Amino acid sequence: MLTVALPKGALLKDSISLLQSVGLDFSAFLDSANRQLQIQDPTGKAQALLVRTHDVPVYVEYGQAQLGIAGYDVLREKKPQVAHLIDLGYGRCRMSVAVKASSPYRSAVELPTNSRVASKFVHCAREYFDSIDLPVEIVPLYGSVELGPITGMSEAIVDLVSTGRTLRENGLIEIEVLYESTARLIAHPLSYRLNTDNLSEIIEKIRSKTLATV
Amino acid sequence: MLTVALPKGALLKDSISLLQSVGLDFSAFLDSANRQLQIQDPTGKAQALLVRTHDVPVYVEYGQAQLGIAGYDVLREKKPQVAHLIDLGYGRCRMSVAVKASSPYRSAVELPTNSRVASKFVHCAREYFDSIDLPVEIVPLYGSVELGPITGMSEAIVDLVSTGRTLRENGLIEIEVLYESTARLIAHPLSYRLNTDNLSEIIEKIRSKTLATV
Repeated sequence: MLTVALPKGALLKDSISLLQSVGLDFSAFLDSANRQLQIQDPTGKAQALLVRTHDVPVYVEYGQAQLGIAGYDVLREKKPQVAHLIDLGYGRCRMSVAVKASSPYRSAVELPTNSRVASKFVHCAREYFDSIDLPVEIVPLYGSVELGPITGMSEAIVDLVSTGRTLRENGLIEIEVLYESTARLIAHPLSYRLNTDNLSEIIEKIRSKTLATV
Repeated sequence: MLTVALPKGALLKDSISLLQSVGLDFSAFLDSANRQLQIQDPTGKAQALLVRTHDVPVYVEYGQAQLGIAGYDVLREKKPQVAHLIDLGYGRCRMSVAVKASSPYRSAVELPTNSRVASKFVHCAREYFDSIDLPVEIVPLYGSVELGPITGMSEAIVDLVSTGRTLRENGLIEIEVLYESTARLIAHPLSYRLNTDNLSEIIEKIRSKTLATV
């Protein structure tokens, strides 16, 4: 049976709407009383897994899900062995460098050599600072990265920014954009090539819906 | 000023009670309306940071907090350069290997060679399977590890178990205990040796409270 890995959190609602528009109903995941992590579409054609956004590529890479929806940020950070199929357009945000508004730095290259940069996206941060040839120490954090500059632990952060509210509330400003991110449809490469469970049909339906809204 | 890093989640309530019993009041963190991640004790003697449990050792290692409270599981997984001071006794749980109840395996050594083991604690899992000389593939996940065996992605999981309810609800059983975990008081090594902010006094108070309740 076709299995789709869906991400908990910010991308879930739009992902479920998109799949509904192509005939797959996983709206039970939006019920706040739901505790199940694996549900079937009422027609019995497909099932979905509800997992952390960082885990979506894992389930797809191992072939436990033939399709998955994940942010480009996660794909760029983890570089999983999956087929990147469609830019779905929603979940738009950007990976940015931010510093305390009261700091003198207004671009990343102005940061002092050997600055500390806190991030949940350590590979993205490392790649970016390598690309501008600035040696920095990346401090890996799991959450609330904005505390890095507030407490003085780090000069800067690399983090996802959507509205910018969290930055403003914490007295931080964005000084550099690494890249823009949106939700992406990904597939298990072998399932995609072999067209298991008639994958290509559902992918084409999603593609036409996505083109219609862009 | 003395800064204490406190973990969000399961250990928070007991940690705040413990600090209250030695005269430091950070109960504002328990207010569900609270959005602040950094607050001062009303007496102005100390401040606390509210961070993810995995981030506590980071703030302590970098000296942004002189003291921190973290689970032994996190300390064992991350091996941070911090001073381990006191076993606080609460937050008791165990790091265990679990499999589907319907599987034939009743101990870790019975797992087939090259099994897949899903875990958020990849270093703990790797260390354990190396110690029993069983080659396995560790699949790193961020959450809902129980989906690994349910979906067939992995034969087993290594995860924290406290009541065992999540395992039972998902048809899994514990077949091996790696170690027991409790909350621990940790300190920034240099601050501890130099007795910055009169650290030893507060540590001794915490030690006597902990001994009184054990």
